[in-house]
Amino acid sequence: MKKHNFSAGPCILPQEVLQKASEAVLNFNNDNLSLLEISHRSKPFVDVMENARSLALELLGLEGKGYKALFLQGGASTQFLMVALNMLEKRAGYLNTGTWSDKAIKEAKIYDDIYEVASSKDANFNYIPKGYDIPTDYDYFHCTSNNTIFGTQMKAFPNSPIPMVCDMSSDIFSRELDFSKFDLIYAGAQKNMGPAGTTLVVVKEDVLGKVSRKIPSMMDYKIHINKSSMFNTPPVFAVYVSMLTMQWLKNLGGIPAIEKENDKKARLIYSEIDLNPLFKGFATKGDRSNMNATFTLANEDLKETFETMVKEAGINGLNGHRSVGGYRASMYNAMPLESVGVLVDVMSELERKA
Amino acid sequence: MKKHNFSAGPCILPQEVLQKASEAVLNFNNDNLSLLEISHRSKPFVDVMENARSLALELLGLEGKGYKALFLQGGASTQFLMVALNMLEKRAGYLNTGTWSDKAIKEAKIYDDIYEVASSKDANFNYIPKGYDIPTDYDYFHCTSNNTIFGTQMKAFPNSPIPMVCDMSSDIFSRELDFSKFDLIYAGAQKNMGPAGTTLVVVKEDVLGKVSRKIPSMMDYKIHINKSSMFNTPPVFAVYVSMLTMQWLKNLGGIPAIEKENDKKARLIYSEIDLNPLFKGFATKGDRSNMNATFTLANEDLKETFETMVKEAGINGLNGHRSVGGYRASMYNAMPLESVGVLVDVMSELERKA
Repeated sequence: MKKHNFSAGPCILPQEVLQKASEAVLNFNNDNLSLLEISHRSKPFVDVMENARSLALELLGLEGKGYKALFLQGGASTQFLMVALNMLEKRAGYLNTGTWSDKAIKEAKIYDDIYEVASSKDANFNYIPKGYDIPTDYDYFHCTSNNTIFGTQMKAFPNSPIPMVCDMSSDIFSRELDFSKFDLIYAGAQKNMGPAGTTLVVVKEDVLGKVSRKIPSMMDYKIHINKSSMFNTPPVFAVYVSMLTMQWLKNLGGIPAIEKENDKKARLIYSEIDLNPLFKGFATKGDRSNMNATFTLANEDLKETFETMVKEAGINGLNGHRSVGGYRASMYNAMPLESVGVLVDVMSELERKA
Repeated sequence: MKKHNFSAGPCILPQEVLQKASEAVLNFNNDNLSLLEISHRSKPFVDVMENARSLALELLGLEGKGYKALFLQGGASTQFLMVALNMLEKRAGYLNTGTWSDKAIKEAKIYDDIYEVASSKDANFNYIPKGYDIPTDYDYFHCTSNNTIFGTQMKAFPNSPIPMVCDMSSDIFSRELDFSKFDLIYAGAQKNMGPAGTTLVVVKEDVLGKVSRKIPSMMDYKIHINKSSMFNTPPVFAVYVSMLTMQWLKNLGGIPAIEKENDKKARLIYSEIDLNPLFKGFATKGDRSNMNATFTLANEDLKETFETMVKEAGINGLNGHRSVGGYRASMYNAMPLESVGVLVDVMSELERKA
C-alpha cells in the first residue's frame, strides 16, 4: 500500500531523488564505484559539491550578491553555536517563537548577553510576535522562520537595522521571499532539502570577520568559505542527495512553482480543520505554517477511531509533538497534494461517522 | 572491469553493505518508506542507533567497562576541538606524528597551552617517536594511531599515567589492541567503519565533567551520552551504513579475523616494495602502517609507464598525498587480498619490463 508520509523530519523526499540516490550507492557516475567509496577530492564529487552550492544560491535568487553557500555538518543545533561564535561581539537580539528559538538563545548565551526582542511563550507559542523593536546597535537579529512543533510561520520579516540571521530549517525553498534581506540563513537538510546529515549555510561574506575571539577552525565560516566547503571530509551522501533534491525543484520551476503547490496543500488541510467541528487548529490563523499543520480532536473520545482510520489509510507520521499534543501534518515540498487529500478524506469521514 | 579501490578515504566498503544500503534508500525495514524519510525517533531507527552503539563497544571489547559509544557529526576535525573543550583544564600533552596530530594540537591551543611530548617532524614524519615521557600532572595525553598521509602506525602505546586520548580514524577495527588502555577514542567513519558523515566517539564516562568551562551543548559529550547519541537529528544514513559494516565485521569473526587479513595484505605489498629495486618505501620499516603503504619510484622516468599499467589493471586511488609524493596504497578492512595482489603484479611486471 502507498504510504502518505506526514513525518515532521527527516521527511518525505521526491521518489526520483530516492531512486537516483539508491543507484549511486552501487554505481556512481558510471565509474563502477559507489558514491560512498570515492575520494571527496575526486572530480566527480567536487562537481557535486559545487553544483549543490550554486543551486542553493540560484534557487534563493542570491547569485552575484556577495553570498556563499556551505554544506556543513551538525544540524541547526551546531549553527546556534556557530552564529554566536562568528557574529556575537557585544549583544544580539533574538525573537523567541518556540523550542528552536529557545535553544538558539541558550547556546548564544554561553558567549554573551542575549536580548529577547519578543516572545510568544505566554500562549505556548501559538502565534508569531509582531510590532517589536530591534535595537540598532546590536550585532545581529535572529529569528526562526517556521516552527515545526507549534505549526507557526513568520509571514513577514522585519526591516532589520542590523544583520538578520534566520533559521529556515523547516521551510527553506518552500516559498518566495526576498532572501537578500537576510545576512545569514541556515537550514538542516532533513525537511525540504535532503536527508539528515548536512546543513546548508548561506552567508553574506561582509558580515563575517567582525568579532575579536579566536574561532575554532571547524566553527569558522570564513575557513569553510576559503576551502570551498571542503575544509574536511564533507558528508558526501547527504550533499549528493541534497543536490538531487534542489535539481528536482529547479526542474519543477523552482520556488515559485512549489509555493503554489504548498499553498494548495495548506488551504486544503486548514479549510478542513476550520469546517470540521471535530477538529481544532492550534496556531493562530494568521500565523499558520504552510509546512506543519497542528490540530487536536475536539473530543478525545474519538482518538482511537480516528487513529485507526488514519492507519488504515496508509498515513504515517501524524503524531503531534508532546509540547502541543494532538496531531501534526507536515507537508514539505515533496508531499503530493493527493496525500493531503487522503488525510482530509479521513477527517471528513470521521465527521460523517461520529 | 572490476575496480581495485585503494582510495585513502572515503574508501572501499564491503559489497554486501553497499547492496543493503542501496536497498534501504528505497525501502527500509520492509515498511515501504525510505530510510531517508523516516523519523529518527521511530523505533526502527532507534534500534539502528542502539545496535550501532553496542556493536562498536562489543567489537572493541569494551562492554561493561564504563564506556559509552556515540555517533556524532563533524569528523575527527570536530573532535580535535571537542576533546579540548571537554577535557583540557590546565595543560595537555600531544604526540606529533604528522598532519592530523598537528591539526589536533592547533585546535586545542585555542583553549590552553599544549605540550608536544615528542615529534617526528625532523624526518617529515616518516617514523613514530619512542621513549618520550608523559607528564603525570597534565589533563590528558593525545596520540594518532595511524597516519594516512605518511603511512606510519603506532605499533605500541605508552602506559600513560594520565587519561589517554587517541585519534583512530584510519585504523579503528583493523587490529587487536587493549582498547581499555584508552579513555577516549574517536574515529571519522570514512575508513574502516562506513561512509563520510559520522564520527564514532568511545569515551570512558569517568574522565568527563572535570573542566570548569561552560561547554556548548553540541560540543558536550555528557549531553550526547544523556541523550543516547540523539541530542539532535543524527546523520541517519551514515549511522545505518556504519552499523551494517560493523555487523559485517562481527560476522567475519571480528577484529581478530580481519587483523589476519590485514597482516597478509601488508606483508604482500611491503615485501614487493622491499624486493623490487624500482620502488622505495617512505616510512621507517618498524613503523609501517598496515592500512596505508607509502612508496615512490626509484626512477621518476618510469612514472608514466607505471601509471598507465596501474590504470589498465583497474587500480583506483593510488596517488600519494602531496606532502610525501609518489604512491599510497590504502588497504582498509574491506579491501580483498586479491586487489593487493593485482597491484603487486603490476609492480613486478614493471620490474620485468624495465
